Amino acid sequence: MQSYIMPRAVLVTGGAGYVGSHTVITLLERQSDGDPLEIVVVDNLSNGYCAEGEKKPEALKRIEELTGKTVHFYKVDIRCAEALDRIFENHNIDCVIHFAALKAVGESVEKPLEYYQVNINGTCTLFEIMRKHGVYKLVYSSSCTVYGEPEYLPINESHPTGKSLTSPYGKSKYFCEEIMKDLCVSDKKWAIISLRYFNPVGAHESGRIGEDPSGIPNNLMPYISQVAVGRLKELKVFGDDYPTADGTGVRDYIHVCDLAAGHVQAIKLFHQPGFNGFHAINLGTGTGYSVLEMVAAFSNASGRAVPHAVAPRRAGDVTANVADVALATRSLGWRATRSLHDMCRDTWRWQEANPNGYHRI
Amino acid sequence: MQSYIMPRAVLVTGGAGYVGSHTVITLLERQSDGDPLEIVVVDNLSNGYCAEGEKKPEALKRIEELTGKTVHFYKVDIRCAEALDRIFENHNIDCVIHFAALKAVGESVEKPLEYYQVNINGTCTLFEIMRKHGVYKLVYSSSCTVYGEPEYLPINESHPTGKSLTSPYGKSKYFCEEIMKDLCVSDKKWAIISLRYFNPVGAHESGRIGEDPSGIPNNLMPYISQVAVGRLKELKVFGDDYPTADGTGVRDYIHVCDLAAGHVQAIKLFHQPGFNGFHAINLGTGTGYSVLEMVAAFSNASGRAVPHAVAPRRAGDVTANVADVALATRSLGWRATRSLHDMCRDTWRWQEANPNGYHRI
Repeated sequence: MQSYIMPRAVLVTGGAGYVGSHTVITLLERQSDGDPLEIVVVDNLSNGYCAEGEKKPEALKRIEELTGKTVHFYKVDIRCAEALDRIFENHNIDCVIHFAALKAVGESVEKPLEYYQVNINGTCTLFEIMRKHGVYKLVYSSSCTVYGEPEYLPINESHPTGKSLTSPYGKSKYFCEEIMKDLCVSDKKWAIISLRYFNPVGAHESGRIGEDPSGIPNNLMPYISQVAVGRLKELKVFGDDYPTADGTGVRDYIHVCDLAAGHVQAIKLFHQPGFNGFHAINLGTGTGYSVLEMVAAFSNASGRAVPHAVAPRRAGDVTANVADVALATRSLGWRATRSLHDMCRDTWRWQEANPNGYHRI
Repeated sequence: MQSYIMPRAVLVTGGAGYVGSHTVITLLERQSDGDPLEIVVVDNLSNGYCAEGEKKPEALKRIEELTGKTVHFYKVDIRCAEALDRIFENHNIDCVIHFAALKAVGESVEKPLEYYQVNINGTCTLFEIMRKHGVYKLVYSSSCTVYGEPEYLPINESHPTGKSLTSPYGKSKYFCEEIMKDLCVSDKKWAIISLRYFNPVGAHESGRIGEDPSGIPNNLMPYISQVAVGRLKELKVFGDDYPTADGTGVRDYIHVCDLAAGHVQAIKLFHQPGFNGFHAINLGTGTGYSVLEMVAAFSNASGRAVPHAVAPRRAGDVTANVADVALATRSLGWRATRSLHDMCRDTWRWQEANPNGYHRI
C-alpha cells in the first residue's frame, strides 16, 4: 500500500478495441495538468490484434509511436477477479473507462450466454473489484440500442429504455445500465456516466489507428470501405422501402475521435465537487444520414466506386435513429466537430493504408 | 464417464431453502416409475441452517427422516463453476430445478451487486455447466414480480414483463427470464419452464419443514406467525387506504406444498417428445386475500390474537395481485388444492413446534 507515491491512473478496459484505442490516444493527446498520468489498458484481445511474440497489441504499439508516451497493458479478461485485483494493486487507479464487451448484434443472437457472461458478469466483476479498492468513478460504454424502436426523434436521454429490445447485445447494455442505476441508489459514492453512442465511424487522422473488425463487418462503414478497397465485392443495402427520403435507413454517424473526445470530457466531470449518481448522455452529431448518402459520401471522399445492391430489410433494424445531443453540450461542454466528409476521408485513409487492418499479411 | 450405470438425478439448487426444501420432500413423496431416482441438492446455506458439526442442513435431515429416503447434499455456491462441474460429473443429472437466489426485496435495494452476482451471474454459470454436460432441461424459480404494477387482473402470462420494476430483486428475475428466452432462441435443445410464483406461504403438514427467515421476516405470513407466537410484538399493516374492500393490499397466497407439486408436474413435461423452448407459467390460486383477511384467518386457525397497527404504505407495493392460473391447469394438469385455512393451520403448526425455526436454541 504505497499509493501515495504512485501516479494517478485511468483504467481503460477493452482499450485495444476500436473505440477504446481511439479514446486511449485522445487521452494521451489531450493530457493536461490535473489529469491522471498513467493509462492502464486491460483487454483479452478477443477483438484486438497482437502479433505473435509481441507483448502489446498492434493498436497500442502504434499509439505509443504516435504520441511518444507509454501505455500499460495487461492481457486480462474482465471476468477474472484475481487478475483485475492485482492491477488495482499495481496502479493508483482514479477512474475507469469500461469498453470491454462483445458487440456484434447478430452473433449475440447465436451466442447469448457468452454475451451475458462477458457483458454483464464481466461488468459486475469489475464493479466488485472497483468497490474493493475504493474506486467509484466510471464511464460506461453504452449504446443507443437501449432505446429500442424510437418513439420520437431526435432521441433524448428521457426516451424510455429497455422496450422492444431484440438482441442479447442490446439487452446486455440495458441490463448493465439498470445495474448501474441500482448501484448508485445503494451507495452515494458511485459516480457513473453512461455514454450512449450512436454510430461510431471513421479513424484517427494519422491513418494508423482504425476499426479492425474480424471477419465480415457487421456495420455499414467498415463494410463500405472494404468494398471500396476491393476486399469485399458488393455492399448489401438492407431495405430501400423505409419511410425515409430515399427509402434506406437513417443513422446518426459520429466520428470515433469526436466520440473519444466525449470520454475525455466525461472524466473531467469527476473533478466537480459532489458529482455522483448515474448519468446517461447521448453521444452523436444530431444529424442523420441514409445508407445511400453514406455510400455517395464515401465514393466522393475515396474516389472509388462502391457497388451496392438492395436486399430485404433485416429483422430488428429501425427506420431512423438520430440523437438529441443537447445534454452532451450542456453537461460535457462537448459537441461533435467532424463532418461526414471527415468521417469518410479518415476511414478511407486508414483502410487504404491498412487493407488488412492491423494484420501485416 | 460411466453414466450408463448411474441412476438419473434431479439437481435442485437452493434445495435447503423454503420453496426448495418443500419441493425436495414433494419430489420424494410422489416419486413414481420413470421419475429420476436421485435428488441432488446444492445450496450455499446463505439462508439454510446447518447445525455445527453436521454435514447436512437441518431441513434436509428432517426430510430424510420423514421420507426414509436419502438426499445428496453439496454445500456449493452456484457461482463456483468448478464445484458445479464436479457435481455434474458425479451424478447423472437429467434436469435441474433452480431455486438458488437471494430473495429479499428490501435488501436487494441496499446490496444490488450481491443480488445481480448471485441471481444472474450464478444462473449463467449454472447454464454454462449444464450445457457443458448436455443437460438442457430446467425449471426456473421466477416470480410474479416480473409483471411489475399490474395492468389488469387476474394477471395471465401474456401480461407485459419488465415494466415498472422497482427492486434489483425483481429486475434480476426479469433479466434471467430474458436470458433464458434468448438461450432457447439460440439452441432448440433448451427446454425451460419458468414458474412465476405468487405468494408462497404455509409449511409441510408434518410441521417439521417450514419457512425459516433470518432476522425480521420480509413477508406477511412469517411476520404474522412470529407475532402470534410472541417472538415479535405487533404486525405493521403497510397502508389501509388502497382501493380494495378493506383498504389493505390484496395478494394471491399459495400453499408452499401446492407450489412444490407444481414443480413435480413441471418436470413431467420434459418427458413429452419434442418439448422445448421457453415456457412461463403462473403458480397461484387465482384468489386474492387482503392483509386483514390474512390476519383474521390466522387468528382463527391458531387461536391466538395477532396485534396489528396501520403504518404508511411501503414504496413499491402494488394494490392487488392475483394470478390467472388457467395455463397451469391446462399445461401442467395442476391446480392449488389447499385453502387459506390450510395455509394458516400449517404455518401455525410449524411455528408453534419450531418457534426459532430450525435453530434448536
